[in-house]
Amino acid sequence: MDNTEKLPILRVTQTEKNDTEDVVTKESPLTIIFNDNELVTLLCSPAELNYLAVGFLASEGLLKSKEEIKRLVVDGHRGVVRLETDKGSESAHELVFKRFISSGCGRGTSFYSAADVQGQVPVSSQLVVSAEEVFTLMKEFQHCSRVFRATGGVHSAALCDKKDILVFSEDIGRHNAIDKILGRCLLEGIATDDGIIITSGRISSEILLKVAKRNIPIIISKSAPTNLGVKLAADLGITLIGFVRGKRMNVYSHGGRVITDGN
Amino acid sequence: MDNTEKLPILRVTQTEKNDTEDVVTKESPLTIIFNDNELVTLLCSPAELNYLAVGFLASEGLLKSKEEIKRLVVDGHRGVVRLETDKGSESAHELVFKRFISSGCGRGTSFYSAADVQGQVPVSSQLVVSAEEVFTLMKEFQHCSRVFRATGGVHSAALCDKKDILVFSEDIGRHNAIDKILGRCLLEGIATDDGIIITSGRISSEILLKVAKRNIPIIISKSAPTNLGVKLAADLGITLIGFVRGKRMNVYSHGGRVITDGN
Repeated sequence: MDNTEKLPILRVTQTEKNDTEDVVTKESPLTIIFNDNELVTLLCSPAELNYLAVGFLASEGLLKSKEEIKRLVVDGHRGVVRLETDKGSESAHELVFKRFISSGCGRGTSFYSAADVQGQVPVSSQLVVSAEEVFTLMKEFQHCSRVFRATGGVHSAALCDKKDILVFSEDIGRHNAIDKILGRCLLEGIATDDGIIITSGRISSEILLKVAKRNIPIIISKSAPTNLGVKLAADLGITLIGFVRGKRMNVYSHGGRVITDGN
Repeated sequence: MDNTEKLPILRVTQTEKNDTEDVVTKESPLTIIFNDNELVTLLCSPAELNYLAVGFLASEGLLKSKEEIKRLVVDGHRGVVRLETDKGSESAHELVFKRFISSGCGRGTSFYSAADVQGQVPVSSQLVVSAEEVFTLMKEFQHCSRVFRATGGVHSAALCDKKDILVFSEDIGRHNAIDKILGRCLLEGIATDDGIIITSGRISSEILLKVAKRNIPIIISKSAPTNLGVKLAADLGITLIGFVRGKRMNVYSHGGRVITDGN
Protein backbone atom coordinates (compact mmCIF):
# COMPACT_ATOMS: atom_id res chain seq x y z
CA MET A 1 0.00 0.00 0.00
CA ASP A 2 1.34 3.40 -0.87
CA ASN A 3 1.73 5.59 2.17
CA THR A 4 3.09 8.57 0.27
CA GLU A 5 1.76 11.35 -1.92
CA LYS A 6 3.58 13.41 -4.53
CA LEU A 7 3.07 17.16 -4.02
CA PRO A 8 4.18 20.27 -5.92
CA ILE A 9 6.80 22.24 -3.97
CA LEU A 10 9.30 25.07 -4.38
CA ARG A 11 12.92 24.06 -3.93
CA VAL A 12 14.67 27.17 -2.66
CA THR A 13 18.34 28.13 -2.44
CA GLN A 14 19.86 31.51 -1.59
CA THR A 15 19.44 32.66 -5.18
CA GLU A 16 16.79 30.46 -6.80
CA LYS A 17 13.25 29.16 -6.52
CA ASN A 18 12.39 26.15 -8.64
CA ASP A 19 9.05 24.39 -9.06
CA THR A 20 9.44 20.67 -8.51
CA GLU A 21 7.76 17.77 -6.70
CA ASP A 22 8.38 16.06 -3.40
CA VAL A 23 7.14 12.79 -1.96
CA VAL A 24 5.39 13.34 1.37
CA THR A 25 4.23 10.75 3.89
CA LYS A 26 0.45 10.39 4.32
CA GLU A 27 -1.35 11.19 7.58
CA SER A 28 -4.99 10.14 8.02
CA PRO A 29 -7.48 9.86 10.87
CA LEU A 30 -8.57 6.38 11.92
CA THR A 31 -11.70 6.13 14.05
CA ILE A 32 -12.09 2.96 16.10
CA ILE A 33 -15.66 1.91 16.90
CA PHE A 34 -15.64 -0.68 19.67
CA ASN A 35 -18.89 -2.50 20.40
CA ASP A 36 -20.87 0.28 18.70
CA ASN A 37 -19.18 3.03 20.70
CA GLU A 38 -16.93 5.51 18.96
CA LEU A 39 -13.83 5.07 21.08
CA VAL A 40 -10.96 7.09 19.66
CA THR A 41 -9.62 8.78 16.55
CA LEU A 42 -5.93 8.27 15.89
CA LEU A 43 -3.81 10.13 13.34
CA CYS A 44 -1.80 7.51 11.51
CA SER A 45 -0.26 6.24 8.30
CA PRO A 46 -3.24 4.79 6.40
CA ALA A 47 -2.12 1.16 6.11
CA GLU A 48 -2.64 -1.96 8.22
CA LEU A 49 -5.66 -0.32 9.86
CA ASN A 50 -6.92 -3.66 11.17
CA TYR A 51 -3.60 -4.30 12.90
CA LEU A 52 -3.53 -0.78 14.33
CA ALA A 53 -7.07 -0.99 15.71
CA VAL A 54 -6.53 -4.43 17.25
CA GLY A 55 -3.13 -3.45 18.65
CA PHE A 56 -4.51 -0.24 20.14
CA LEU A 57 -7.33 -2.13 21.84
CA ALA A 58 -4.89 -4.75 23.14
CA SER A 59 -2.56 -2.04 24.48
CA GLU A 60 -5.52 -0.42 26.24
CA GLY A 61 -6.37 -3.74 27.87
CA LEU A 62 -9.70 -3.97 26.01
CA LEU A 63 -8.80 -7.04 23.98
CA LYS A 64 -6.86 -10.07 25.15
CA SER A 65 -7.08 -12.60 22.33
CA LYS A 66 -8.30 -13.19 18.79
CA GLU A 67 -11.04 -15.43 20.11
CA GLU A 68 -12.78 -12.47 21.74
CA ILE A 69 -13.32 -10.81 18.34
CA LYS A 70 -16.81 -11.46 16.96
CA ARG A 71 -16.61 -9.05 14.03
CA LEU A 72 -13.90 -6.84 12.52
CA VAL A 73 -14.79 -4.52 9.64
CA VAL A 74 -12.30 -2.14 8.03
CA ASP A 75 -13.50 0.82 5.95
CA GLY A 76 -10.22 2.14 4.60
CA HIS A 77 -11.91 4.80 2.51
CA ARG A 78 -13.66 6.47 5.44
CA GLY A 79 -10.91 5.63 7.90
CA VAL A 80 -13.08 3.59 10.23
CA VAL A 81 -12.53 0.22 11.91
CA ARG A 82 -15.45 -1.47 13.68
CA LEU A 83 -14.67 -4.20 16.16
CA GLU A 84 -17.16 -6.19 18.18
CA THR A 85 -16.56 -8.57 21.07
CA ASP A 86 -18.80 -10.57 23.34
CA LYS A 87 -18.17 -8.21 26.20
CA GLY A 88 -19.99 -4.95 26.79
CA SER A 89 -18.06 -1.77 26.20
CA GLU A 90 -19.54 0.34 28.94
CA SER A 91 -16.22 0.62 30.69
CA ALA A 92 -14.17 0.97 27.51
CA HIS A 93 -14.96 4.60 26.86
CA GLU A 94 -14.12 5.44 30.41
CA LEU A 95 -10.89 3.47 30.36
CA VAL A 96 -9.47 5.17 27.29
CA PHE A 97 -10.84 8.49 28.42
CA LYS A 98 -9.11 7.92 31.71
CA ARG A 99 -5.81 7.27 30.04
CA PHE A 100 -5.81 10.45 28.02
CA ILE A 101 -7.76 12.70 30.26
CA SER A 102 -7.65 11.88 33.90
CA SER A 103 -4.84 9.61 34.83
CA GLY A 104 -4.91 10.81 38.36
CA CYS A 105 -4.31 14.32 39.59
CA GLY A 106 -4.25 13.34 43.20
CA ARG A 107 -2.08 10.40 42.36
CA GLY A 108 0.28 12.27 40.05
CA THR A 109 3.48 10.36 39.45
CA SER A 110 2.34 7.33 41.39
CA PHE A 111 -0.04 6.43 38.58
CA TYR A 112 3.03 5.70 36.53
CA SER A 113 4.74 3.53 39.09
CA ALA A 114 4.66 -0.09 38.09
CA ALA A 115 2.78 -1.36 41.13
CA ASP A 116 -0.14 0.80 40.17
CA VAL A 117 -0.19 0.56 36.41
CA GLN A 118 -3.47 -1.18 35.68
CA GLY A 119 -2.38 -4.17 37.76
CA GLN A 120 0.40 -4.94 35.30
CA VAL A 121 2.17 -8.22 36.09
CA PRO A 122 5.96 -8.33 35.59
CA VAL A 123 7.15 -10.15 32.47
CA SER A 124 8.55 -13.60 33.07
CA SER A 125 10.79 -15.08 30.39
CA GLN A 126 13.97 -17.13 30.27
CA LEU A 127 15.02 -15.51 26.98
CA VAL A 128 18.73 -14.73 26.67
CA VAL A 129 20.37 -12.96 23.70
CA SER A 130 24.00 -12.40 22.82
CA ALA A 131 25.31 -8.90 22.15
CA GLU A 132 26.17 -10.04 18.64
CA GLU A 133 22.55 -11.09 18.01
CA VAL A 134 21.36 -7.64 19.10
CA PHE A 135 23.81 -5.89 16.76
CA THR A 136 22.77 -8.12 13.86
CA LEU A 137 19.04 -7.60 14.48
CA MET A 138 19.49 -3.82 14.60
CA LYS A 139 21.44 -3.88 11.33
CA GLU A 140 18.67 -5.89 9.67
CA PHE A 141 16.01 -3.57 11.13
CA GLN A 142 17.74 -0.49 9.77
CA HIS A 143 17.97 -2.16 6.38
CA CYS A 144 14.19 -2.78 6.43
CA SER A 145 13.56 0.80 7.53
CA ARG A 146 15.59 2.17 4.62
CA VAL A 147 13.68 0.03 2.16
CA PHE A 148 10.23 0.98 3.48
CA ARG A 149 10.96 4.56 4.34
CA ALA A 150 11.09 6.75 1.25
CA THR A 151 10.23 10.06 2.83
CA GLY A 152 12.07 10.24 6.13
CA GLY A 153 8.83 11.00 7.93
CA VAL A 154 7.95 7.75 9.62
CA HIS A 155 8.80 5.50 12.53
CA SER A 156 9.23 1.77 12.28
CA ALA A 157 8.90 -1.16 14.67
CA ALA A 158 9.46 -4.90 14.48
CA LEU A 159 8.93 -8.12 16.37
CA CYS A 160 11.92 -10.47 16.23
CA ASP A 161 13.16 -13.71 17.64
CA LYS A 162 16.88 -14.03 18.40
CA LYS A 163 17.75 -14.57 14.77
CA ASP A 164 15.24 -12.83 12.52
CA ILE A 165 12.74 -10.06 12.06
CA LEU A 166 9.30 -11.72 12.05
CA VAL A 167 6.99 -8.71 11.59
CA PHE A 168 7.81 -5.16 10.46
CA SER A 169 5.56 -2.07 10.40
CA GLU A 170 5.86 1.65 9.95
CA ASP A 171 3.73 4.64 10.91
CA ILE A 172 4.02 8.39 11.38
CA GLY A 173 3.55 7.71 15.12
CA ARG A 174 5.96 5.58 17.13
CA HIS A 175 3.07 4.40 19.33
CA ASN A 176 1.09 3.37 16.26
CA ALA A 177 4.00 1.46 14.74
CA ILE A 178 4.24 -0.66 17.90
CA ASP A 179 0.45 -1.16 18.02
CA LYS A 180 0.47 -2.37 14.40
CA ILE A 181 3.06 -4.99 15.32
CA LEU A 182 1.15 -6.13 18.40
CA GLY A 183 -2.18 -6.15 16.56
CA ARG A 184 -0.82 -8.25 13.73
CA CYS A 185 0.66 -10.75 16.18
CA LEU A 186 -2.65 -11.04 17.99
CA LEU A 187 -4.66 -11.47 14.76
CA GLU A 188 -2.28 -13.92 13.14
CA GLY A 189 -1.44 -15.95 16.22
CA ILE A 190 2.24 -14.98 16.28
CA ALA A 191 3.59 -15.60 19.78
CA THR A 192 5.10 -12.57 21.51
CA ASP A 193 5.96 -14.15 24.86
CA ASP A 194 9.63 -14.72 24.11
CA GLY A 195 9.86 -12.01 21.48
CA ILE A 196 12.01 -8.93 21.05
CA ILE A 197 10.61 -5.55 20.01
CA ILE A 198 12.76 -3.10 18.04
CA THR A 199 11.65 0.52 17.65
CA SER A 200 13.13 3.44 15.75
CA GLY A 201 11.86 5.86 18.38
CA ARG A 202 12.48 6.91 21.93
CA ILE A 203 11.44 4.39 24.61
CA SER A 204 9.02 6.29 26.86
CA SER A 205 6.63 5.03 29.53
CA GLU A 206 3.73 4.48 27.12
CA ILE A 207 5.85 2.38 24.75
CA LEU A 208 7.09 0.32 27.68
CA LEU A 209 3.55 -0.37 28.94
CA LYS A 210 2.43 -1.62 25.52
CA VAL A 211 5.30 -4.08 25.45
CA ALA A 212 4.69 -5.20 29.05
CA LYS A 213 1.03 -5.84 28.29
CA ARG A 214 2.01 -8.45 25.68
CA ASN A 215 4.56 -10.04 28.04
CA ILE A 216 7.55 -9.18 25.80
CA PRO A 217 10.86 -9.45 27.70
CA ILE A 218 13.24 -7.32 25.57
CA ILE A 219 12.92 -3.94 23.84
CA ILE A 220 15.66 -2.43 21.69
CA SER A 221 16.14 1.03 20.17
CA LYS A 222 18.90 2.97 18.53
CA SER A 223 17.46 6.00 20.35
CA ALA A 224 17.34 7.01 24.00
CA PRO A 225 14.91 5.95 26.71
CA THR A 226 13.29 8.33 29.24
CA ASN A 227 13.86 7.92 32.96
CA LEU A 228 10.23 6.80 33.40
CA GLY A 229 10.67 4.22 30.61
CA VAL A 230 13.72 2.83 32.43
CA LYS A 231 11.93 2.79 35.79
CA LEU A 232 8.96 0.87 34.39
CA ALA A 233 11.26 -1.55 32.54
CA ALA A 234 13.15 -2.26 35.77
CA ASP A 235 9.92 -2.75 37.75
CA LEU A 236 8.18 -4.84 35.07
CA GLY A 237 11.03 -7.27 34.38
CA ILE A 238 11.84 -5.98 30.90
CA THR A 239 15.33 -5.65 29.43
CA LEU A 240 15.59 -2.15 27.95
CA ILE A 241 18.43 -1.67 25.46
CA GLY A 242 19.09 1.78 23.96
CA PHE A 243 21.63 3.50 21.74
CA VAL A 244 22.41 0.36 19.73
CA ARG A 245 24.92 1.79 17.29
CA GLY A 246 27.47 -0.28 15.45
CA LYS A 247 28.96 -2.68 17.98
CA ARG A 248 27.95 -0.85 21.16
CA MET A 249 24.81 -0.51 23.21
CA ASN A 250 23.52 0.62 26.59
CA VAL A 251 21.51 -1.80 28.73
CA TYR A 252 19.33 0.15 31.18
CA SER A 253 17.58 -2.71 33.01
CA HIS A 254 17.70 -6.48 33.53
CA GLY A 255 21.09 -6.89 31.86
CA GLY A 256 21.18 -10.56 32.82
CA ARG A 257 19.34 -11.39 29.58
CA VAL A 258 22.27 -10.09 27.51
CA ILE A 259 25.41 -12.21 27.22
CA THR A 260 28.74 -11.41 25.56
CA ASP A 261 31.55 -13.55 24.19
CA GLY A 262 33.38 -12.76 27.44
CA ASN A 263 30.63 -13.91 29.82
CA MET B 1 16.07 23.43 35.61
CA ASP B 2 17.60 19.99 35.20
CA ASN B 3 15.59 17.80 32.90
CA THR B 4 17.94 14.84 33.12
CA GLU B 5 18.73 12.06 35.56
CA LYS B 6 21.90 10.01 35.90
CA LEU B 7 21.22 6.26 35.95
CA PRO B 8 23.42 3.17 36.36
CA ILE B 9 23.69 1.21 33.09
CA LEU B 10 25.67 -1.59 31.47
CA ARG B 11 27.70 -0.54 28.46
CA VAL B 12 27.93 -3.67 26.29
CA THR B 13 30.17 -4.58 23.37
CA GLN B 14 30.56 -7.95 21.69
CA THR B 15 33.01 -9.09 24.34
CA GLU B 16 32.46 -6.91 27.42
CA LYS B 17 29.89 -5.63 29.89
CA ASN B 18 30.91 -2.63 31.96
CA ASP B 19 29.00 -0.90 34.74
CA THR B 20 28.82 2.82 34.11
CA GLU B 21 26.34 5.71 34.20
CA ASP B 22 24.25 7.39 31.55
CA VAL B 23 22.33 10.66 31.54
CA VAL B 24 18.67 10.08 30.65
CA THR B 25 15.99 12.65 29.88
CA LYS B 26 13.18 12.97 32.44
CA GLU B 27 9.54 12.16 31.63
CA SER B 28 6.79 13.16 34.07
CA PRO B 29 3.02 13.42 34.06
CA LEU B 30 1.47 16.89 34.20
CA THR B 31 -2.20 17.11 35.16
CA ILE B 32 -4.02 20.27 34.11
CA ILE B 33 -6.99 21.27 36.27
CA PHE B 34 -9.07 23.86 34.43
CA ASN B 35 -11.77 25.66 36.42
CA ASP B 36 -11.78 22.86 39.00
CA ASN B 37 -12.16 20.12 36.40
CA GLU B 38 -9.35 17.67 35.83
CA LEU B 39 -8.89 18.12 32.12
CA VAL B 40 -5.91 16.14 30.88
CA THR B 41 -2.67 14.47 31.93
CA LEU B 42 0.25 15.00 29.57
CA LEU B 43 3.57 13.17 29.67
CA CYS B 44 6.27 15.81 29.37
CA SER B 45 9.68 17.10 30.36
CA PRO B 46 9.13 18.54 33.86
CA ALA B 47 10.05 22.18 33.21
CA GLU B 48 8.09 25.28 32.22
CA LEU B 49 4.90 23.61 33.41
CA ASN B 50 3.04 26.94 33.51
CA TYR B 51 3.93 27.59 29.87
CA LEU B 52 2.94 24.07 28.86
CA ALA B 53 -0.44 24.25 30.61
CA VAL B 54 -1.27 27.68 29.21
CA GLY B 55 -0.07 26.74 25.71
CA PHE B 56 -2.08 23.51 25.76
CA LEU B 57 -5.24 25.37 26.77
CA ALA B 58 -4.63 28.01 24.08
CA SER B 59 -4.07 25.31 21.44
CA GLU B 60 -7.33 23.67 22.50
CA GLY B 61 -9.14 26.97 22.08
CA LEU B 62 -9.95 27.18 25.80
CA LEU B 63 -7.85 30.27 26.49
CA LYS B 64 -7.47 33.31 24.27
CA SER B 65 -5.50 35.85 26.31
CA LYS B 66 -3.65 36.42 29.56
CA GLU B 67 -6.48 38.66 30.76
CA GLU B 68 -8.82 35.67 30.97
CA ILE B 69 -6.62 34.01 33.61
CA LYS B 70 -7.90 34.64 37.14
CA ARG B 71 -5.54 32.25 38.91
CA LEU B 72 -2.59 30.06 37.88
CA VAL B 73 -1.00 27.74 40.44
CA VAL B 74 1.86 25.39 39.62
CA ASP B 75 2.67 22.42 41.88
CA GLY B 76 5.86 21.14 40.29
CA HIS B 77 6.33 18.46 42.93
CA ARG B 78 2.98 16.78 42.30
CA GLY B 79 2.95 17.64 38.59
CA VAL B 80 -0.26 19.64 38.71
CA VAL B 81 -1.18 23.01 37.21
CA ARG B 82 -4.47 24.66 38.24
CA LEU B 83 -5.82 27.40 36.04
CA GLU B 84 -9.01 29.37 36.59
CA THR B 85 -10.79 31.72 34.24
CA ASP B 86 -13.99 33.74 34.41
CA LYS B 87 -15.71 31.37 32.07
CA GLY B 88 -17.30 28.11 33.04
CA SER B 89 -15.62 24.94 31.92
CA GLU B 90 -18.64 22.83 31.21
CA SER B 91 -17.74 22.57 27.57
CA ALA B 92 -13.98 22.23 28.15
CA HIS B 93 -13.98 18.60 29.14
CA GLU B 94 -16.11 17.76 26.19
CA LEU B 95 -13.95 19.76 23.79
CA VAL B 96 -10.70 18.08 24.71
CA PHE B 97 -12.44 14.74 24.98
CA LYS B 98 -13.82 15.33 21.52
CA ARG B 99 -10.40 16.01 20.11
CA PHE B 100 -8.84 12.83 21.41
CA ILE B 101 -11.77 10.56 21.42
CA SER B 102 -14.48 11.32 18.98
CA SER B 103 -13.36 13.62 16.26
CA GLY B 104 -16.07 12.38 14.01
CA CYS B 105 -16.47 8.89 12.66
CA GLY B 106 -19.12 9.86 10.19
CA ARG B 107 -17.08 12.83 9.20
CA GLY B 108 -13.75 11.03 8.98
CA THR B 109 -11.23 12.92 6.94
CA SER B 110 -13.47 15.93 6.54
CA PHE B 111 -12.95 16.82 10.16
CA TYR B 112 -9.39 17.57 9.24
CA SER B 113 -10.16 19.75 6.29
CA ALA B 114 -9.52 23.40 7.00
CA ALA B 115 -13.07 24.57 6.41
CA ASP B 116 -14.23 22.39 9.24
CA VAL B 117 -11.44 22.68 11.77
CA GLN B 118 -13.07 24.38 14.71
CA GLY B 119 -13.94 27.38 12.54
CA GLN B 120 -10.26 28.17 12.08
CA VAL B 121 -9.70 31.48 10.26
CA PRO B 122 -6.83 31.65 7.73
CA VAL B 123 -3.72 33.47 8.91
CA SER B 124 -3.28 36.94 7.46
CA SER B 125 0.21 38.45 7.56
CA GLN B 126 2.38 40.51 5.26
CA LEU B 127 5.55 38.92 6.65
CA VAL B 128 8.24 38.17 4.06
CA VAL B 129 11.55 36.42 4.77
CA SER B 130 14.63 35.89 2.62
CA ALA B 131 16.02 32.42 2.06
CA GLU B 132 19.22 33.57 3.74
CA GLU B 133 17.30 34.59 6.87
CA VAL B 134 15.72 31.12 7.05
CA PHE B 135 19.11 29.41 6.73
CA THR B 136 20.59 31.63 9.44
CA LEU B 137 17.66 31.08 11.83
CA MET B 138 17.91 27.32 11.40
CA LYS B 139 21.65 27.39 12.09
CA GLU B 140 21.04 29.39 15.27
CA PHE B 141 18.20 27.03 16.28
CA GLN B 142 20.39 23.98 15.88
CA HIS B 143 23.08 25.65 17.95
CA CYS B 144 20.54 26.25 20.76
CA SER B 145 19.34 22.65 20.48
CA ARG B 146 22.87 21.32 20.85
CA VAL B 147 23.43 23.43 23.95
CA PHE B 148 20.19 22.43 25.65
CA ARG B 149 20.07 18.87 24.51
CA ALA B 150 22.45 16.70 26.48
CA THR B 151 20.74 13.37 26.06
CA GLY B 152 19.45 13.19 22.51
CA GLY B 153 15.98 12.39 23.75
CA VAL B 154 14.10 15.65 23.31
CA HIS B 155 12.47 17.89 20.74
CA SER B 156 12.93 21.63 20.60
CA ALA B 157 10.89 24.55 19.29
CA ALA B 158 11.37 28.30 19.01
CA LEU B 159 9.56 31.51 18.18
CA CYS B 160 11.62 33.88 16.02
CA ASP B 161 11.35 37.14 14.19
CA LYS B 162 13.23 37.48 10.90
CA LYS B 163 16.55 38.04 12.63
CA ASP B 164 16.59 36.29 15.99
CA ILE B 165 15.30 33.49 18.18
CA LEU B 166 13.03 35.12 20.76
CA VAL B 167 11.88 32.10 22.80
CA PHE B 168 13.29 28.56 22.91
CA SER B 169 11.87 25.45 24.63
CA GLU B 170 12.43 21.73 24.68
CA ASP B 171 10.33 18.72 25.64
CA ILE B 172 10.21 14.98 25.10
CA GLY B 173 7.08 15.64 22.99
CA ARG B 174 7.14 17.79 19.86
CA HIS B 175 3.57 18.94 20.59
CA ASN B 176 4.57 19.96 24.11
CA ALA B 177 7.62 21.90 22.92
CA ILE B 178 5.38 24.01 20.67
CA ASP B 179 2.78 24.48 23.43
CA LYS B 180 5.51 25.70 25.83
CA ILE B 181 6.50 28.34 23.28
CA LEU B 182 2.92 29.45 22.69
CA GLY B 183 2.10 29.46 26.41
CA ARG B 184 5.12 31.58 27.26
CA CYS B 185 4.24 34.08 24.53
CA LEU B 186 0.70 34.34 25.83
CA LEU B 187 1.77 34.77 29.47
CA GLU B 188 4.56 37.24 28.77
CA GLY B 189 2.77 39.25 26.10
CA ILE B 190 5.18 38.30 23.30
CA ALA B 191 3.42 38.93 19.98
CA THR B 192 3.14 35.91 17.69
CA ASP B 193 1.18 37.49 14.84
CA ASP B 194 4.16 38.08 12.58
CA GLY B 195 6.32 35.39 14.13
CA ILE B 196 8.07 32.34 12.79
CA ILE B 197 7.96 28.94 14.51
CA ILE B 198 10.87 26.52 14.19
CA THR B 199 10.46 22.90 15.27
CA SER B 200 12.90 19.99 15.41
CA GLY B 201 10.10 17.57 14.61
CA ARG B 202 7.84 16.49 11.80
CA ILE B 203 5.13 18.99 10.81
CA SER B 204 1.85 17.07 11.14
CA SER B 205 -1.74 18.30 11.18
CA GLU B 206 -1.85 18.83 14.94
CA ILE B 207 1.30 20.95 14.92
CA LEU B 208 -0.10 23.01 12.07
CA LEU B 209 -3.37 23.67 13.92
CA LYS B 210 -1.55 24.93 17.01
CA VAL B 211 0.37 27.41 14.90
CA ALA B 212 -2.74 28.52 13.00
CA LYS B 213 -4.59 29.15 16.26
CA ARG B 214 -2.01 31.77 17.24
CA ASN B 215 -2.10 33.36 13.78
CA ILE B 216 1.56 32.54 13.01
CA PRO B 217 2.32 32.81 9.27
CA ILE B 218 5.50 30.71 8.87
CA ILE B 219 6.62 27.34 10.25
CA ILE B 220 10.05 25.86 9.59
CA SER B 221 11.55 22.41 10.22
CA LYS B 222 14.61 20.48 9.23
CA SER B 223 12.31 17.44 9.08
CA ALA B 224 9.49 16.42 6.76
CA PRO B 225 5.83 17.46 6.81
CA THR B 226 2.90 15.05 6.37
CA ASN B 227 0.47 15.46 3.47
CA LEU B 228 -2.26 16.56 5.92
CA GLY B 229 0.10 19.13 7.43
CA VAL B 230 0.74 20.53 3.95
CA LYS B 231 -2.97 20.57 3.07
CA LEU B 232 -3.89 22.46 6.23
CA ALA B 233 -1.01 24.93 5.74
CA ALA B 234 -2.20 25.62 2.20
CA ASP B 235 -5.82 26.09 3.32
CA LEU B 236 -4.96 28.16 6.40
CA GLY B 237 -2.60 30.61 4.73
CA ILE B 238 0.58 29.33 6.42
CA THR B 239 3.99 29.06 4.75
CA LEU B 240 5.30 25.55 5.51
CA ILE B 241 9.05 25.12 5.02
CA GLY B 242 10.65 21.68 5.49
CA PHE B 243 14.00 19.98 5.05
CA VAL B 244 16.01 23.14 5.79
CA ARG B 245 19.50 21.73 5.50
CA GLY B 246 22.57 23.85 4.82
CA LYS B 247 21.61 26.23 2.02
CA ARG B 248 18.58 24.37 0.69
CA MET B 249 14.96 24.01 1.69
CA ASN B 250 11.57 22.85 0.44
CA VAL B 251 8.62 25.25 0.55
CA TYR B 252 5.35 23.28 0.57
CA SER B 253 2.79 26.12 0.69
CA HIS B 254 2.46 29.89 0.27
CA GLY B 255 5.96 30.33 -1.17
CA GLY B 256 5.25 34.01 -1.84
CA ARG B 257 6.48 34.84 1.66
CA VAL B 258 9.98 33.56 0.82
CA ILE B 259 12.26 35.69 -1.37
CA THR B 260 15.69 34.94 -2.77
CA ASP B 261 18.56 37.11 -3.96
CA GLY B 262 17.33 36.32 -7.46
CA ASN B 263 13.71 37.41 -6.97
